Amino acid sequence: MVRVSIVGASGYTGAELAGLIHKHPEFEIAGLYVSENSNDAYKAFSAIHGQFAYQIDRTLIPISEKQITKLVAECDAIFLCTPHEASVEMVRRIIEAGGVVFDLSGAYRLSDLSVINEYYGFSHKYPDLLNQAVYGLAEWNHADIRKSNLISVPGCYPTACLSALKPLQEAKLIDSNVLPIINATSGVTGAGRKAAISNSFCEVSLHPYGVLSHRHQPEINEHLGTPVIFTPHLGNFKRGILATTTLKLADGANAKQVNQVYKEAYEGHPLVRLRQAWPSIQAVERTPFVDIHWQFDEKTGYLIVISAIDNLLKGAAGQAMQCANLRFGFAADRGLVN
Amino acid sequence: MVRVSIVGASGYTGAELAGLIHKHPEFEIAGLYVSENSNDAYKAFSAIHGQFAYQIDRTLIPISEKQITKLVAECDAIFLCTPHEASVEMVRRIIEAGGVVFDLSGAYRLSDLSVINEYYGFSHKYPDLLNQAVYGLAEWNHADIRKSNLISVPGCYPTACLSALKPLQEAKLIDSNVLPIINATSGVTGAGRKAAISNSFCEVSLHPYGVLSHRHQPEINEHLGTPVIFTPHLGNFKRGILATTTLKLADGANAKQVNQVYKEAYEGHPLVRLRQAWPSIQAVERTPFVDIHWQFDEKTGYLIVISAIDNLLKGAAGQAMQCANLRFGFAADRGLVN
Amino acid sequence: MVRVSIVGASGYTGAELAGLIHKHPEFEIAGLYVSENSNDAYKAFSAIHGQFAYQIDRTLIPISEKQITKLVAECDAIFLCTPHEASVEMVRRIIEAGGVVFDLSGAYRLSDLSVINEYYGFSHKYPDLLNQAVYGLAEWNHADIRKSNLISVPGCYPTACLSALKPLQEAKLIDSNVLPIINATSGVTGAGRKAAISNSFCEVSLHPYGVLSHRHQPEINEHLGTPVIFTPHLGNFKRGILATTTLKLADGANAKQVNQVYKEAYEGHPLVRLRQAWPSIQAVERTPFVDIHWQFDEKTGYLIVISAIDNLLKGAAGQAMQCANLRFGFAADRGLVN
Amino acid sequence: MVRVSIVGASGYTGAELAGLIHKHPEFEIAGLYVSENSNDAYKAFSAIHGQFAYQIDRTLIPISEKQITKLVAECDAIFLCTPHEASVEMVRRIIEAGGVVFDLSGAYRLSDLSVINEYYGFSHKYPDLLNQAVYGLAEWNHADIRKSNLISVPGCYPTACLSALKPLQEAKLIDSNVLPIINATSGVTGAGRKAAISNSFCEVSLHPYGVLSHRHQPEINEHLGTPVIFTPHLGNFKRGILATTTLKLADGANAKQVNQVYKEAYEGHPLVRLRQAWPSIQAVERTPFVDIHWQFDEKTGYLIVISAIDNLLKGAAGQAMQCANLRFGFAADRGLVN
Repeated sequence: MVRVSIVGASGYTGAELAGLIHKHPEFEIAGLYVSENSNDAYKAFSAIHGQFAYQIDRTLIPISEKQITKLVAECDAIFLCTPHEASVEMVRRIIEAGGVVFDLSGAYRLSDLSVINEYYGFSHKYPDLLNQAVYGLAEWNHADIRKSNLISVPGCYPTACLSALKPLQEAKLIDSNVLPIINATSGVTGAGRKAAISNSFCEVSLHPYGVLSHRHQPEINEHLGTPVIFTPHLGNFKRGILATTTLKLADGANAKQVNQVYKEAYEGHPLVRLRQAWPSIQAVERTPFVDIHWQFDEKTGYLIVISAIDNLLKGAAGQAMQCANLRFGFAADRGLVN
Repeated sequence: MVRVSIVGASGYTGAELAGLIHKHPEFEIAGLYVSENSNDAYKAFSAIHGQFAYQIDRTLIPISEKQITKLVAECDAIFLCTPHEASVEMVRRIIEAGGVVFDLSGAYRLSDLSVINEYYGFSHKYPDLLNQAVYGLAEWNHADIRKSNLISVPGCYPTACLSALKPLQEAKLIDSNVLPIINATSGVTGAGRKAAISNSFCEVSLHPYGVLSHRHQPEINEHLGTPVIFTPHLGNFKRGILATTTLKLADGANAKQVNQVYKEAYEGHPLVRLRQAWPSIQAVERTPFVDIHWQFDEKTGYLIVISAIDNLLKGAAGQAMQCANLRFGFAADRGLVN
Repeated sequence: MVRVSIVGASGYTGAELAGLIHKHPEFEIAGLYVSENSNDAYKAFSAIHGQFAYQIDRTLIPISEKQITKLVAECDAIFLCTPHEASVEMVRRIIEAGGVVFDLSGAYRLSDLSVINEYYGFSHKYPDLLNQAVYGLAEWNHADIRKSNLISVPGCYPTACLSALKPLQEAKLIDSNVLPIINATSGVTGAGRKAAISNSFCEVSLHPYGVLSHRHQPEINEHLGTPVIFTPHLGNFKRGILATTTLKLADGANAKQVNQVYKEAYEGHPLVRLRQAWPSIQAVERTPFVDIHWQFDEKTGYLIVISAIDNLLKGAAGQAMQCANLRFGFAADRGLVN
Repeated sequence: MVRVSIVGASGYTGAELAGLIHKHPEFEIAGLYVSENSNDAYKAFSAIHGQFAYQIDRTLIPISEKQITKLVAECDAIFLCTPHEASVEMVRRIIEAGGVVFDLSGAYRLSDLSVINEYYGFSHKYPDLLNQAVYGLAEWNHADIRKSNLISVPGCYPTACLSALKPLQEAKLIDSNVLPIINATSGVTGAGRKAAISNSFCEVSLHPYGVLSHRHQPEINEHLGTPVIFTPHLGNFKRGILATTTLKLADGANAKQVNQVYKEAYEGHPLVRLRQAWPSIQAVERTPFVDIHWQFDEKTGYLIVISAIDNLLKGAAGQAMQCANLRFGFAADRGLVN
């Protein structure tokens, strides 16, 4: 059994990951941790996440950045479900101590220091590690993920968007004169588990946020290799992301080619489902899949691609698990589908 | 025009009340206030409650307990949508300054000091004022409301429950050996506008709270005149309360008598709707009404009465407006129905 | 008082309209009708729409296409909340009988017979009437609406989208080489009141529908005067539409110009609110407004405009009322805001 | 592997069961069937239940009552997720053919023919089979379930209510002079997968139904062994039941005894979770558990017990699976928890 620890297990992503590992036939939980000053320190994990009562009976242990290195000796890998600032340091310490880390924050997803500064508001101190980090978009970077000790698990929106766009971009089917337009709507777990007026039940309806300024826009740009316009929205549901992308195909490209590149891109990748129907939040909720469907408008030359994921699974914990499967020599979907 | 001020206008009840006054043909807003240390001080009212943009263009002015007396001179009545502790003092100052006050908190709803201490956790300093306060259950206390300067507007659950039970209790139709059992479910606005994990979109589903300890239980007991078992629940909707009461009728009482006492109790009271169908949250949402329907089980002698209100309207701002209508000489439903 | 009848009063739009007229100071309900074979024939209106119990005590009277002319003599205007096929005929009969009709269906919104055939699936028999019909986008066509007897009330999506786009298009600020991309999400009342698996509570989550084939796309194209890509989605809420439009500004156009054209377009139009914050469903729900906000991306030259409406109000009944206000000589917002 | 077929696999319960069997290590799907005249005949299972795309690739085969016997030869057990009327006959044929059947309808849950007639509206033709049927409340009837070929899986509400009440009733702790009052709220999947106005997204809020007449009331009465008042409600969520029971303890009974009888009743039964916190829909959604918590009111002698289940799991498919586990010699929770 591969023994793993989760830091930041009180949040929605950490809890989801704990659940995945708990039921995984090849992995087991070594410890569940929260940050040093967490209100949840020393609480029972299942007192916060009641669905795991009598299943995962563990206490949330507080841990400091410095103490993180001791975990390296006690388990085979560490998942960080921590804020960006905490991850920056913890990742460094884990790597220096020879550990394997899956970072679910945004700390190691971008390579351009000025972009990090603009969107995250800090000067990244470890550009070497940035270069070393493998972006854990599992269907695309599996070879590198298998060999890396530092895997930066993609953001939820980028996972939904890149899964939809990369096959087209790699095949040079996107008209580069017209920006792909992505409108995406996320459930509220995407904002994390915290007390905030903006997350309160009475305030959530459906509205945009982070327009032209969301951190996932440069992440999509970098890993797609071409700029997009990305507008996120918050919807009144708990889990899931639906992303609707409209783009102009390159001159001469047609529906048949589009079908072909998707098929080729995802053959043998069981967690991507090329659907014969439009995706919905319902069809992906609590599943590890990304669902994709598209339609070409011959009149205008525009293509509409719609993708959907569970933001906590393929958009976070599920993909982290997928990366860990690859890293430790298992099939990508091991423990994720039955 | 009757000029009124609202203290605590940033919350859901205060905002709802501002909306009611704004569209009322006989009342107008003199000022919208928040407590001294509110995060919302000096914000535009409509920046918080976007539905009122371009309609109610006012700034939320912070006000201290001491300053409250100056409002008395500037307007005809003051509505307090403030926490219990603040209301205790503000009410005293307003009354001493000769003002008219509608207190929407629980500060003046109970008369027994020990019960207040047990359920609210403080020693009430103004027992004289408690005696002076009129409980603003408008259909039952309208005569007193018309003459009082201190009206304590009922809680949301008590309004739903008392409206359903008082006709039976007044007519002595309830078997006093068996406690009436009330199960009620409230929308999340009932918890107020605040940042709290328990109110967060991702945490709300349907669950009980305040079991055997909710402040509204003694309020129901006192104003009904007989004890009940009251179990509140939080539901995943924004507005509304549905209360299901099961009680045993007194020996010999029958369905016809029940029908009769309801009819008599609410004849001429347009904000109580004796429905021919079971109430639902949907039918009362954004309305000033309480809907009531009942059914008698001949086999067992038990009666089921179900009542529904919008917790922000008949359960708070609407009933406050109804009381103000009565106090200033208008029809109870003036400005509330069209 | 202007006396009006509603045909199709059992649906959500019809009911909403009945509510608006009921509370309107200048209009009154003459009769509430349903189609000949409706399941709701002879039911009490408030048995279906419980919120109106004790307020609107009327029976739903079935009426055939032929009988419609008798209504012309009995009231000042007729609102049709009927299916397209029914409206086609009823409008003709009303106009021939000298009546005034507000048609809320899509029967008279498009002028191109072949487009109607493609999107609605029938050959429109009355091209003369199509030419005669005034498109009731109230802020833009108010002069014509005031003089017309046949007002075709716009679709919900087109209202949200055209309100956002027309100021830019009229000012020639849109780059005509790049199609404006509209993604919009509607609440479920948009699908009408009917028994269907697709509308059932358990099936609704968030998903696209009518991709590249929705009837509102040609409606937007025609009344905007330039083609767009329009992708509608169904969301898990009852009322409201949020439309996110991304477009490229014409060369040299800037943010200041955009601000200016919006200001000029909507000065004196109280039902359009140019907001200083991003619109949300919550801020427009149960209001007659369209909220609009935008942001220009200097880096790319793209503009993001977001608009929101209540689909049953500004998207249907509210705008119908607005048109009726204009047609009968009242202020556009009479009876709609207080 | 135990091979099983599901009849009625297009509904929510049937689909959930298919999912459970698909991932179960000891069971496998032999066939998925729908009734003869189903609209879903010959559709792909995953075209209806998109979450199973690429996972359960089967066609829904229509089957008549007569053909059911051929299934007996082809598999080890049959699950009936069919309407009561269909189940009555199918069960008989299966039993006569020597098969093993788990009936999830209400056809074989009650033993009193007159009660069946009153609540289900038909004369049950097979009283012998009624006597033979084992009521599949797994924690209470496991010994019989292991030996039976005809297991009648309990209703969703009865499962939630009986799990909460049976320990008290068996220990004679309930005051028999005062009826236990059960108020329960179910998610909309409880109403089945069908097109109906009452299930439509726009009509669901929170309201009672089946007051004093719901079929689950006699089911609770019979299997509890004492009458109760049961009032069901429909809530605006997809899955889950929360049941709040208020009852008077027998004279002299106390909190300690209550704690003791619950502990004893459920020791060694991993699918019942005696929680230290009040149950919520969220904590049981998509889990196979029933959560129970209680509190005694010393002042009045009343006890409040609250239980929660996922109506599709412990309330239907999960408990059917649990029964099948027992029947085929596996641990009760095999394949249900990880």
